[in-house]
Amino acid sequence: MAGTGIKTQDWAAFRAEAQRMLEAALDQMQEAAERPWQPVPGDIDARYAIRAEAQGPEQTVDRIIADVLPYHGGNIHPRFWGWVQGSGLASDLIAALAAAAVNANMGGRDHGANYMERAVVDWTRAKMGMPEGASGILVTGTSQATVIACQAARLRVMKDLRKQGQGDVRLTAYAGEGVHNATLKAVELLGIGSDNLRKVPLVGGQMDCAALARIVAEDRAAGALPFLVVGTAGSVDLGLFDDLNALADAAAALGLWLHVDGAFGAWTRIADEPYRSLSDGIGRADSIALDFHKWMYVGYDCGMALLRNEDEHRAAFAARPSYLEGAERGLAGGEPWFCDYGIDLSRGNRALKVWTALETYGEAAFCEAITGNCALAAAMAAEVEAQPLMALGAPVVSNICVFTARCDLAPETQSQVNAEIAQTLQESGEAVFSTTRMDGRVMLRAAITNHRSRPADVDAAIAAVAREAARV
Amino acid sequence: MAGTGIKTQDWAAFRAEAQRMLEAALDQMQEAAERPWQPVPGDIDARYAIRAEAQGPEQTVDRIIADVLPYHGGNIHPRFWGWVQGSGLASDLIAALAAAAVNANMGGRDHGANYMERAVVDWTRAKMGMPEGASGILVTGTSQATVIACQAARLRVMKDLRKQGQGDVRLTAYAGEGVHNATLKAVELLGIGSDNLRKVPLVGGQMDCAALARIVAEDRAAGALPFLVVGTAGSVDLGLFDDLNALADAAAALGLWLHVDGAFGAWTRIADEPYRSLSDGIGRADSIALDFHKWMYVGYDCGMALLRNEDEHRAAFAARPSYLEGAERGLAGGEPWFCDYGIDLSRGNRALKVWTALETYGEAAFCEAITGNCALAAAMAAEVEAQPLMALGAPVVSNICVFTARCDLAPETQSQVNAEIAQTLQESGEAVFSTTRMDGRVMLRAAITNHRSRPADVDAAIAAVAREAARV
Repeated sequence: MAGTGIKTQDWAAFRAEAQRMLEAALDQMQEAAERPWQPVPGDIDARYAIRAEAQGPEQTVDRIIADVLPYHGGNIHPRFWGWVQGSGLASDLIAALAAAAVNANMGGRDHGANYMERAVVDWTRAKMGMPEGASGILVTGTSQATVIACQAARLRVMKDLRKQGQGDVRLTAYAGEGVHNATLKAVELLGIGSDNLRKVPLVGGQMDCAALARIVAEDRAAGALPFLVVGTAGSVDLGLFDDLNALADAAAALGLWLHVDGAFGAWTRIADEPYRSLSDGIGRADSIALDFHKWMYVGYDCGMALLRNEDEHRAAFAARPSYLEGAERGLAGGEPWFCDYGIDLSRGNRALKVWTALETYGEAAFCEAITGNCALAAAMAAEVEAQPLMALGAPVVSNICVFTARCDLAPETQSQVNAEIAQTLQESGEAVFSTTRMDGRVMLRAAITNHRSRPADVDAAIAAVAREAARV
Repeated sequence: MAGTGIKTQDWAAFRAEAQRMLEAALDQMQEAAERPWQPVPGDIDARYAIRAEAQGPEQTVDRIIADVLPYHGGNIHPRFWGWVQGSGLASDLIAALAAAAVNANMGGRDHGANYMERAVVDWTRAKMGMPEGASGILVTGTSQATVIACQAARLRVMKDLRKQGQGDVRLTAYAGEGVHNATLKAVELLGIGSDNLRKVPLVGGQMDCAALARIVAEDRAAGALPFLVVGTAGSVDLGLFDDLNALADAAAALGLWLHVDGAFGAWTRIADEPYRSLSDGIGRADSIALDFHKWMYVGYDCGMALLRNEDEHRAAFAARPSYLEGAERGLAGGEPWFCDYGIDLSRGNRALKVWTALETYGEAAFCEAITGNCALAAAMAAEVEAQPLMALGAPVVSNICVFTARCDLAPETQSQVNAEIAQTLQESGEAVFSTTRMDGRVMLRAAITNHRSRPADVDAAIAAVAREAARV
């Protein structure tokens, strides 16, 4: 095809197609409320099969508009509250264009994007209340950040780990019941083993620090090397928060590294009360994992590992062979290089979308949206309690509301009804709840990390649940 | 500021700013040759500091145009050959817009983007010559893919690893001298220890399979559990390729998992001869790590782990707690979920930029560009050899040319001169070489993974090196 080779663009034609793509993308965002999730068509594999021949930009944009934009995951819709998913920002379009044009490899070297990442890290550090000089790196998400934090924690107690491996030292880590799967996957990946992630009972929804001390003492007595306790700021099922000040005290007393999983809940730091206090003490952690793509609403993927001590961060990852040697000037300058702070040597530009969001909308808009999401979860809980046959699974603490649509039925039947309602409302496009299990029952679960949600959306969704529940 | 809240967009105003951003991004790509890397200004930290107040889209786009676009990393310039960096595609602009509008979380669930990722995985699998049914996942890059592959390899020999950890089993892995640092970092991360990554000598630039067998036997005799051999398709320093068929035979005979680091070199699979043959046998590997953001030119970040056996892939990572249970219909359907194939639960949309590039330009354009890059490296070598005071560090095998600008000087002085020339040409904007060490000397190194490079660029760059070398 003429004009579609990689080297020789017909720029005028290409420009027109890019403009058409931009308009369609803007339409998709502007009309988010009219475009709920819909099932993918049965011939989707055929539509997406990669063709041998160049199609050119016009055909490609046609196909994206027809076959890609309509089959999104639903999470940009104002009544999407499934799992804990972000809802995306219009500013992402601006950031995405600039990022594609710059095409930064943020593993190192001396160019603007790395300075911007440092600005984003420093802004986040300050919001979390970590001291100046604390270290951080943008990653795909909390799962990666958890791996980075766990490895740094392990290095603190095993200085020769990188060379010698863990060997026969039995490291043990601690987390509350209900800890997110990311921590489990991290200890599996690192070869520590999930048997050595001890689950500490909760009291009032928070890790029982007395029980923690008891289990640590037992493990020490049995020859293990306790090294890490993982606190939770926003549990995935219920949005619960550990008492992070108490945990920081306990970690210090027990000689453990305190890591906080703050995937979404860390952002209560910039919410109004009573939600801000939930994460009090988070800045005392040795490390925090958090996401921007959930409750800061920026596009996927974007998370961060924050580590209190930069030397410990570097000790876990810094390594630069001769082909990556730095220089005092020129493009090989710009120390430090981010490849020394994590797993990846080549790194995409996540800083720009965070920076663009904060610059465009300002921190106050995020404070308002996050606080508003918690208020909506509380409003949803009130509506649930006002319905005679519905019941909450647990009190709403932050932004997550778990409930059953028919508390009058046997547990098994409740599970069927709730699962059925979730699927029916997903398919009708009315609302997206996900499900979870509580007290032996499948329940409906709304995690509100959606800046497009309004009170009327909650009203409509609960009315739809009530309608479906009445059909049983 | 009116109209800049997250919820209430002034869409007409926002649309105008997004259009302005698009035009600036297109200009940046169209004028790539006129915009080389330049040093970042001294006040860059102040320019990027995040402000408390909303700036709105107009001010934000102004700042991006003034302070972000000019300070790129140079890798979109036609005379950029530093490290091994990709050069970006205009199609990335189209893909980035659609990806931002859809904002897919590709950890799971039933929506289009996951089907597209499966299409991209399957296309890549076929190109690499892996059998149908092989498994894959898009990741940030080869570093992540290497971690995934190493963990799956470890699970093959230690079925209970996820629960019990590695314990006192001494696993040993094998790779040729010159293996990329990504493998080293992976065995460190997994707690295996870099002492247990044994370096096998090379013969003629390829791993010596007889030596491999000897070292494996010694390790076995000493009580270790050899589990993994890492082959290289495109070494980072010189672009060398192991004999992958011989390695596959050796791995089978020795009972080792064969992983191939094909970060860039894997793409010789779609090049013309004599380059295609370099990666013969790669499809016989148990796993391959490769990048799209290097030699497929798509924007950062984008790599892939391919695993021959899907069961082994899942055995290393699959884990779905109750809040991620699948369903037969609705949004929670769409098995399998990609979160069961890697570390990340939340995942960005990397498939769309690969798909858009292949659809827009067609595979033949990539074949031509990759083959052309190798031809340019050969041409550069010829020019180096034609210069009386220059000398190659090694013969050019694929797309990497390493040379010294002044072979007449003492090694120490050569190092200074070569490092100085690299920096001077970076700062002048004439060309970007990186450096590496060879035979005790710092040398200039060009890794040509740049679809914008033409023969005239090589001529100009070598002339500039000669000019600077003559000044000494």
